Amino acid sequence: MTITHPAGFRAAGVAAGLKSTGAKDIALVVNDGPTFDSASVFTANRCKANPVLWSQEVVKDGVVRAVFLNSGGANCYTGPEGFQTTHAVAETVADRLGIGALDVVVCSTGLIGLTNDREQVLAGASAAYDALASDGGQQAAEAIMTTDSVSKQVVVEGAGWSIGGMAKGAGMLAPQLATMLVVLTTDAVVPAADLDTALRAATRVSFDRLDSDGCMSTNDTVTVLASGASGITPALPDFTDALTQACTDLAMQLLRDAEGADHEIAITVLNAATEDEAVEVGRSVARSNLFKAAVFGNDPNWGRVLASIGTTRAAFDPADLDVAMNGVWVCKQSTPHADPETVDLKPREVSVTIDLKAGSERATVWTNDLTHAYVHENSAYSS
Amino acid sequence: MTITHPAGFRAAGVAAGLKSTGAKDIALVVNDGPTFDSASVFTANRCKANPVLWSQEVVKDGVVRAVFLNSGGANCYTGPEGFQTTHAVAETVADRLGIGALDVVVCSTGLIGLTNDREQVLAGASAAYDALASDGGQQAAEAIMTTDSVSKQVVVEGAGWSIGGMAKGAGMLAPQLATMLVVLTTDAVVPAADLDTALRAATRVSFDRLDSDGCMSTNDTVTVLASGASGITPALPDFTDALTQACTDLAMQLLRDAEGADHEIAITVLNAATEDEAVEVGRSVARSNLFKAAVFGNDPNWGRVLASIGTTRAAFDPADLDVAMNGVWVCKQSTPHADPETVDLKPREVSVTIDLKAGSERATVWTNDLTHAYVHENSAYSS
Repeated sequence: MTITHPAGFRAAGVAAGLKSTGAKDIALVVNDGPTFDSASVFTANRCKANPVLWSQEVVKDGVVRAVFLNSGGANCYTGPEGFQTTHAVAETVADRLGIGALDVVVCSTGLIGLTNDREQVLAGASAAYDALASDGGQQAAEAIMTTDSVSKQVVVEGAGWSIGGMAKGAGMLAPQLATMLVVLTTDAVVPAADLDTALRAATRVSFDRLDSDGCMSTNDTVTVLASGASGITPALPDFTDALTQACTDLAMQLLRDAEGADHEIAITVLNAATEDEAVEVGRSVARSNLFKAAVFGNDPNWGRVLASIGTTRAAFDPADLDVAMNGVWVCKQSTPHADPETVDLKPREVSVTIDLKAGSERATVWTNDLTHAYVHENSAYSS
Repeated sequence: MTITHPAGFRAAGVAAGLKSTGAKDIALVVNDGPTFDSASVFTANRCKANPVLWSQEVVKDGVVRAVFLNSGGANCYTGPEGFQTTHAVAETVADRLGIGALDVVVCSTGLIGLTNDREQVLAGASAAYDALASDGGQQAAEAIMTTDSVSKQVVVEGAGWSIGGMAKGAGMLAPQLATMLVVLTTDAVVPAADLDTALRAATRVSFDRLDSDGCMSTNDTVTVLASGASGITPALPDFTDALTQACTDLAMQLLRDAEGADHEIAITVLNAATEDEAVEVGRSVARSNLFKAAVFGNDPNWGRVLASIGTTRAAFDPADLDVAMNGVWVCKQSTPHADPETVDLKPREVSVTIDLKAGSERATVWTNDLTHAYVHENSAYSS
């Protein structure tokens, strides 16, 4: 159930002392080939962390042979010193592997504005190299956890090939991407250009539609590595489907582990004029603190849903909107319909369905409720 | 200190039984002239309440002779029945005053999706008419309160003329306007077109820059009435300054009374390329739940400020941003500077200063922190 399930990969997770708890904090994932195709997407935040600035250059040629990841420090807003640490760790990994530093993606997560001790990071990189194993995926998945309560992993089986994945993230799940690091591996033969097409299609309907708290992270990275070790070249639609399945599975794991949440909320917008407008409407509801606090209070407050829809530019008739919560149409034609008392919001999973009656497109956006625990964790934890 | 301070106005506030507590719930403000010029701005939410739909028609000719306001029900998402109630109350007020219904603005606030009893509302309108008094401003200001803990009123003195104002609002303070009803009165002589110019200038830098929780209301209305009773025609810049002062004062009263807030946060953006970009950056920080929760926890988390700036399209160099909190420059050139431990966030008033180094424009946006009390009030109170 992990990134070392597909053939051609080794991984490791070790403790290098970056976390004061002594927990594992450095992970390394190596593609042993025979192919080294890759694709990546990064945060859309313009204030990016140093590892993102580095890795954006690394991935340009479509070749990535290793991914280094650390928790215990985001290396974000740490200036030229921080960038040099990222560069140095890529050099260290590359030296040990006998490859070039520009084939090493670097990912970091943890406190912002914190400068990690460079020697400690480099020693950890070497230790991770020494610990590389063909069954090391579980260790790597544990090493990238921060406030995550569980490690997130997935395997999707193709016909003679497979996809493995791991993710970290437990909050700041947001607009373009969540605060998350995701590494996906496959032993299928997939050229870099096709990997890129597949990855963008998969993230567009999975990670990009998580909006836990509207905050966009500085370090988000999703990288997929193809080793070609299975010798099988799947049809691109089949591979894209499997990758979408893996990304959606990981996205739902992230959603369920969002800091302090009591409910997972799926907002489905029906009959929009365009898919983009369906996403815009879903996201506007996902961003309403008033609505999210109401769900925490088990209050099926459809008025707050309509008020959020009204802030968008999507096509609809303000006097003819229908809204269901957990399948009960509490609002039809923008007026009260079924008794909200019949909506049971106690289960963790909540569905909101909005009928815009403006076309035939649809989309689902996922978010969490706004809880006391969210306020507590994010006022007490510096990140 | 109220709307009946300027000459030419009468007002009343009465209890009509719309609030189950028996508190005052209907207000009436009448302009006795000799002039009846007016200007108004309304919520930008496309899903507007029935009184907004009505009042938008009323104000088109620049003549308003009375404003009817009720708390205890927003008359929003209540369909044609709700619109008929709004129309009927305007007719009732007009009949008693001997004017036309199309000179009566109607404002409502309270629960969304709730249909008020029409006869109760009409009886209340008549009772308010009977109670009209030239010192009735305080009563009116109390009658429009919902979750407000205090009534909000202001008077600004001009040279032989004055401006009075009242407001309600204690949450959902948002993008284009807050959930708020505001009535401003003046005995200056100001033609409707000039009133409109002055009101738009005043609200642009006051109510429009409040962003308490990013949620845009359905009922927001700001109406200014000019009686001309002083016989004095001020220079438009002088009048605009005074109106801006009145609006800013009321906006700060709304901010200080926002539901569940522990801090008022002023986010000032310096050296932006344009004023719009300064506002965009300020608003992005004001919308960050992570930042707002950090302020609640007295944590000067400037990393969350930079992460929010990075989501905007404003001109700046991501590697050269300076951020101060309460006057301490905790971040220079996007890296740590002064020790955050030296920032004292215990006082209610918090300032965040952002230097974009991209031009010479500036703007201040105001918000509140995200607290346990906010979550509690908005999960427990249906609105």
